[in-house]
Amino acid sequence: MTIDSKQLRNALGAFATGVTIVTTQDKSGRDAGMTVNSFSSVSLDPPMVLWSLAKNAHSRDAFLNAEYFGVHILAVDQADLSAKFASRGIDKFSGLELARGHGNVPLLDGCAARFECKTVFRYEGGDHDILVGEVVSFENFGPPSLVFVSGRYAVAVDKPESSGNEGVSPELEERGTVTVLQSLLGAAHYQCQLGIRPELARCSLTEPEFFMLGSAAFHSQCTVAELVRFVGVSGHKVSAADVDRLVSRRLLALEGEPGADARVHVGDEGQKMLARITAILRSIEDDAMKDFGYMEIQVFKQMLRKIIQRTLPSWRKPL
Amino acid sequence: MTIDSKQLRNALGAFATGVTIVTTQDKSGRDAGMTVNSFSSVSLDPPMVLWSLAKNAHSRDAFLNAEYFGVHILAVDQADLSAKFASRGIDKFSGLELARGHGNVPLLDGCAARFECKTVFRYEGGDHDILVGEVVSFENFGPPSLVFVSGRYAVAVDKPESSGNEGVSPELEERGTVTVLQSLLGAAHYQCQLGIRPELARCSLTEPEFFMLGSAAFHSQCTVAELVRFVGVSGHKVSAADVDRLVSRRLLALEGEPGADARVHVGDEGQKMLARITAILRSIEDDAMKDFGYMEIQVFKQMLRKIIQRTLPSWRKPL
Repeated sequence: MTIDSKQLRNALGAFATGVTIVTTQDKSGRDAGMTVNSFSSVSLDPPMVLWSLAKNAHSRDAFLNAEYFGVHILAVDQADLSAKFASRGIDKFSGLELARGHGNVPLLDGCAARFECKTVFRYEGGDHDILVGEVVSFENFGPPSLVFVSGRYAVAVDKPESSGNEGVSPELEERGTVTVLQSLLGAAHYQCQLGIRPELARCSLTEPEFFMLGSAAFHSQCTVAELVRFVGVSGHKVSAADVDRLVSRRLLALEGEPGADARVHVGDEGQKMLARITAILRSIEDDAMKDFGYMEIQVFKQMLRKIIQRTLPSWRKPL
Repeated sequence: MTIDSKQLRNALGAFATGVTIVTTQDKSGRDAGMTVNSFSSVSLDPPMVLWSLAKNAHSRDAFLNAEYFGVHILAVDQADLSAKFASRGIDKFSGLELARGHGNVPLLDGCAARFECKTVFRYEGGDHDILVGEVVSFENFGPPSLVFVSGRYAVAVDKPESSGNEGVSPELEERGTVTVLQSLLGAAHYQCQLGIRPELARCSLTEPEFFMLGSAAFHSQCTVAELVRFVGVSGHKVSAADVDRLVSRRLLALEGEPGADARVHVGDEGQKMLARITAILRSIEDDAMKDFGYMEIQVFKQMLRKIIQRTLPSWRKPL
């Protein structure tokens, strides 16, 4: 088999990695740093790590001759820093706050974990040198770390179960008659709303009225006509007369000429009511996402946003 | 700084990795294999990879003396295989279909990518040996790969944008009055449903009637009383009389004694109608998730299922 470099690179890219920035300072006092994903843990006792240094790297000599180097496992929000340290011909360290470690090695902030290493072995590795360092000091800062796989930045989230054998899901997925996404979205949405029903009843607020209140809070300064339209997306048909009824209860308030173009905002009674309902919704939301880690919540919300963006009604799309 | 092994292991765990199984065959013809996440790419020209072999590994000799070894980058559904090859004292290869590579090395199926390597260097690395192999053959099978980070299996999904600067999201997140999750879930759900409104109108089907039809399809063989309750979760109040009206249109059909305990199923006209609506929903769903990869879709659905599971109304919870 002849090895095609591009295809090999793609195949190797299937192996997910974190992203690190390795740093050092050369004999003349110049800082060097580069983005590296060939980092790996080698030994716990003695503590050792390794990474591979390209033989054509600009800062090869600095690293080959360095007594110490630093390894920064990048956090999920450091993709820009990764790109910066993967570039050539720029001052990578400009604008960065640096600490100094063993051998005056520049240490960066905001990463997931950081290691200071003393070079112990330099091994031959084809078009790279393999540098093995003994860890002399380290810090574990805790934020979720950046992932690189198949040539793209990514984040790691909990592995989904291979099959839906946890409660409602098999049922939901086996029926072909209702599509899965919509069933799931609908069930999640409606069940999350169940907990506010008693409060809505106590406030003598119907569901469509609650949607009017919520939409007015959300789309602040919208007109009466717009409010009717926004609420309409939920399937609840409301009218200007319904708006007026809420105005008379001081749940909504109007500004400007009466009519479809009057601006709507939430009235003083409406503010109080929304605050109570929101508190209930928040506790439902916290409980519903109890098993989600920080990254899961970010990813989930991002996915919902993408769906919302792609399904925006045409009259809401930006021109 | 004295290095605490456990804390060091945790800090190193912040670096995400794929999961590989390395395999070989010893001189006596015995297959050996182990789960390894210290794999890394070293060189493209010549093509080289490395991994670290524990000096106390049961199959150390087999790998140290092997002319060839195989590396399998595990796919996302191979966590069980990973656990199996991380165990001791079992026949790891039993029940597995094996191909044979260079040096009769056992090759496993179902992985994301696979490499056959010729050992070229064995380097000292503390409590491990570093094995460097030249890639003599490889295959890239394509399924998404398993991730291991912070001591847990995970999957990689697209990195969420750091801030919501794409359309509706900033708006959605800035208002404190409505909680974010519920706004997002509601907007995603209702907007996905927008596209079926024309078809519902054409079928003279109200939204609550559509929910009745969908619930009957989903909870097959439920009773009239149960159907009313299921639809009630959506906030739509329907009654046994509404069921009867759909029965008279052959959208629903009843079985058994008339009354609250009669079993409901979808009638012949209802089947046709649902098929048409489902086709529309599917195309909306496909479009809504157009930017999602395979893994994103799995993760998203799993998250929705978790939320559904945690917010199930008490009367639906299993005892």
